[in-house]
Amino acid sequence: MGRTMLRATSPEALERRVAAVEQTGLGRGWKDPEVGIGAYYEFEDPDGHVFGLYYDTTLYQADEQDRPALKNQASRYPGYGVNARRLDHINYLASDVNATGDFWDQTMKSRETEQVELDAGGFAARWFRFAQKSYDVVYSEDWTGERGRFHHLAFATDTREDILKAADFFLEEGVYIEYGPYKHAINQTFFLYVWEPGGNRIEFANAGARLILNPDQPVVTWTEAERAKGQAWGMKTVPTFHTHGTPYVENQEEIDRAALEGRRL
Amino acid sequence: MGRTMLRATSPEALERRVAAVEQTGLGRGWKDPEVGIGAYYEFEDPDGHVFGLYYDTTLYQADEQDRPALKNQASRYPGYGVNARRLDHINYLASDVNATGDFWDQTMKSRETEQVELDAGGFAARWFRFAQKSYDVVYSEDWTGERGRFHHLAFATDTREDILKAADFFLEEGVYIEYGPYKHAINQTFFLYVWEPGGNRIEFANAGARLILNPDQPVVTWTEAERAKGQAWGMKTVPTFHTHGTPYVENQEEIDRAALEGRRL
Amino acid sequence: MGRTMLRATSPEALERRVAAVEQTGLGRGWKDPEVGIGAYYEFEDPDGHVFGLYYDTTLYQADEQDRPALKNQASRYPGYGVNARRLDHINYLASDVNATGDFWDQTMKSRETEQVELDAGGFAARWFRFAQKSYDVVYSEDWTGERGRFHHLAFATDTREDILKAADFFLEEGVYIEYGPYKHAINQTFFLYVWEPGGNRIEFANAGARLILNPDQPVVTWTEAERAKGQAWGMKTVPTFHTHGTPYVENQEEIDRAALEGRRL
Amino acid sequence: MGRTMLRATSPEALERRVAAVEQTGLGRGWKDPEVGIGAYYEFEDPDGHVFGLYYDTTLYQADEQDRPALKNQASRYPGYGVNARRLDHINYLASDVNATGDFWDQTMKSRETEQVELDAGGFAARWFRFAQKSYDVVYSEDWTGERGRFHHLAFATDTREDILKAADFFLEEGVYIEYGPYKHAINQTFFLYVWEPGGNRIEFANAGARLILNPDQPVVTWTEAERAKGQAWGMKTVPTFHTHGTPYVENQEEIDRAALEGRRL
Repeated sequence: MGRTMLRATSPEALERRVAAVEQTGLGRGWKDPEVGIGAYYEFEDPDGHVFGLYYDTTLYQADEQDRPALKNQASRYPGYGVNARRLDHINYLASDVNATGDFWDQTMKSRETEQVELDAGGFAARWFRFAQKSYDVVYSEDWTGERGRFHHLAFATDTREDILKAADFFLEEGVYIEYGPYKHAINQTFFLYVWEPGGNRIEFANAGARLILNPDQPVVTWTEAERAKGQAWGMKTVPTFHTHGTPYVENQEEIDRAALEGRRL
Repeated sequence: MGRTMLRATSPEALERRVAAVEQTGLGRGWKDPEVGIGAYYEFEDPDGHVFGLYYDTTLYQADEQDRPALKNQASRYPGYGVNARRLDHINYLASDVNATGDFWDQTMKSRETEQVELDAGGFAARWFRFAQKSYDVVYSEDWTGERGRFHHLAFATDTREDILKAADFFLEEGVYIEYGPYKHAINQTFFLYVWEPGGNRIEFANAGARLILNPDQPVVTWTEAERAKGQAWGMKTVPTFHTHGTPYVENQEEIDRAALEGRRL
Repeated sequence: MGRTMLRATSPEALERRVAAVEQTGLGRGWKDPEVGIGAYYEFEDPDGHVFGLYYDTTLYQADEQDRPALKNQASRYPGYGVNARRLDHINYLASDVNATGDFWDQTMKSRETEQVELDAGGFAARWFRFAQKSYDVVYSEDWTGERGRFHHLAFATDTREDILKAADFFLEEGVYIEYGPYKHAINQTFFLYVWEPGGNRIEFANAGARLILNPDQPVVTWTEAERAKGQAWGMKTVPTFHTHGTPYVENQEEIDRAALEGRRL
Repeated sequence: MGRTMLRATSPEALERRVAAVEQTGLGRGWKDPEVGIGAYYEFEDPDGHVFGLYYDTTLYQADEQDRPALKNQASRYPGYGVNARRLDHINYLASDVNATGDFWDQTMKSRETEQVELDAGGFAARWFRFAQKSYDVVYSEDWTGERGRFHHLAFATDTREDILKAADFFLEEGVYIEYGPYKHAINQTFFLYVWEPGGNRIEFANAGARLILNPDQPVVTWTEAERAKGQAWGMKTVPTFHTHGTPYVENQEEIDRAALEGRRL
């Protein structure tokens, strides 16, 4: 994940966020337009992940052969195979979950929905939303101690059945299924995680009808003891969740194998 | 539907909306707090439907016996039977769809997602959203010409399978199934409409992963010719959709029967 | 549907059925092996549909590139798109439903599960099973009066969701959706009917966990009044069900259009 | 599981099976009718599980208040909650899987669909079917060495979604979820296993459209190496599958705990 480009909800919102980022000293300045997006402001989060913020954009227009039967969707063929309806959220590994979380809370003004608090203080993971979706940006602790790594990108499917189908496809195609299909305790999303051939973790996620419609919804804080119960229906979290990320650290495979065997290198 | 109470996203948003409503002359003034909600501002839309706007509220707290297994949901038993996860949207019949639509567009600052435009000008129906859900408030033309009637209230379910199950339950319970389960062309929601014993239309709706994430999403306008193709997979719109509402007009049953037989009284 | 080839459950079963058919005078004699099947006995049902009965067969063996990840399925790619898991059943139109039904009951020794009885006597449709599936062979009355026509062939899918997806695909591909997705009253199958470009009706069907496990299960007889209630959730049977078949009669399109308009030519 | 009562497909089939059982010396003779079933022949399998075989039965007749909306189902309310459509299969633990399997193969004339063969010879588990369902009776190796114990009873649901819902219900009700929801490699059934409060394992199972329609379907044999890959999508088999059964052995809880920790007492 070289960088993440985010669209502001309005030109005014863009200006406000850029001003806030500039105050943190993490800004890299305005960059020239690229394909599909206008001028954008580049910056890093406190853990070194690179972002761009923009407002101007060019909406996709389907040409003749991709025109859908129903005009209120972007293109034909919405659902063959897994039906990845949209990019849903992105999860970063971080050497410092607290600092990155505070950045999204205070500077980016996203709202925290859930978090895992460590017994020793600080957080193992924090989930943030921009509007009604239960989360858009997530940070998780990187047990390797590296800065700025990528945990996963998630595609939202219309149904849980899409995700069960996806598992069959990945099995058939020989793509490594790391975890799921199953249901998260946190935010209760139905999930499936695979590692694409390049080693990046991809999630297929379905949140059902879950949205955060309450404007002052309290943050849900999970303790280590609560997390030890496993995911919603009881299966324990796969240990490679805390070790596997991209770019790989030097002994990535060894670390992942150790994690699966219950050891932490 | 005696009245509809809506919560503003902040005290400031409440003030802005009340000021805007007051300018229209449709306001009825501030009213005292009621159970669960604080002081609210009462008003009518241009067709006579009654609304209240408030911000202060009391969040539901489950007592011991209703405490859920997962702390990030409001109470136990989320899914027995049909699993109505949340109130999703409300649809009003209106003698004047144009005026009510303009009110929600200009005064209430909700954003229009889709609309049905009549060949003779004006609109047969308009769909509005407050944030990322594809619609929250809808107005449809009332063929009886009455003002201020109710079309339906919708509950969102986590899955389409919930809606297929619901149809079995309603069949078994003798509740009149008016339409569906099927898929709307407009907004592509999977739906089921029943009339509860009192005659009010209730929808069970599943939008899949469909949300409006684009801040300047263009309005989708359907023509009469496009609507004549029926719903997504081709079934024609049930004629009572344009006649049946509450409160009943004097000869409601006769009008509905005529509609089903292809006549418009 | 030029002819239907059926496999007997054993060489002895084949002999018994052939002997029974020969007694009816409908037999056409033994024919030479063809690709995939051994010698077969050809015959007509009383309405002129052609069948072959055989036992010897060659099981499909996937070659290297089609070998599945799980060895207990026939080949790779079980579920892309619609996932037609198996050929489920075949439905014939008949000028004489009574005679064909009696043939399958008495000569072929299949067991009737459900039937529609006409007020004037005789049957509008009859459903037969060979073992535990709720039906394998069906006959329906042909309102055109033609002999030996084909009504539809059905593919079973693993889920109802497959069928909802299929409807989206057919919409996108411009394939005519005649009826559904919806739930039959008879045998309670979830269904979708389309006309492939050649005019043949194809069904995608899901019976849930419904099987006939009771060896002496009584036949369920539906009256005309019961059928007039429509399918399970109330939608009326599409009128072309009684007129559209292949091969086409001379004025097929006109007859179908009349049926949709409530007229019977 | 005190005993299992099975219905023969005809009086003649009953006579044939009883004669075959008598030859094995495992018969206990005919017993008087009981509620719902006529005279039955009682016997043991080689591992000491008790069975009864009968043909005469009394079909359930719904009284007025339980009469279903559709006459082709047994009673009202088919689907609230989990919708256990039917009893699907029963799985026994056995000290000697080979002997019990041979009994069902040779004496009971059921047909084997799949089996797990041990590297050292013999079988760890064998699946048998009576007709088209992929399995009805299953035997698995009991690592405690006990004879005649019960592994689980399975209810078939119409959909996989029912099983996902069931997991939510069990979570909410505090019923121990041992394994799943997930997909078996063997027979590819979607499953969920719980322990009801008395300690008996109950499965909720959905086979999709999978049936064995081929009369001479070859047995699928899995090796230990193939089984070591885990279930369909890769999750390893839960270790208590080989230890937990009823009646409990003396140190059942200790044995189960050891199994979960990777030790075999």
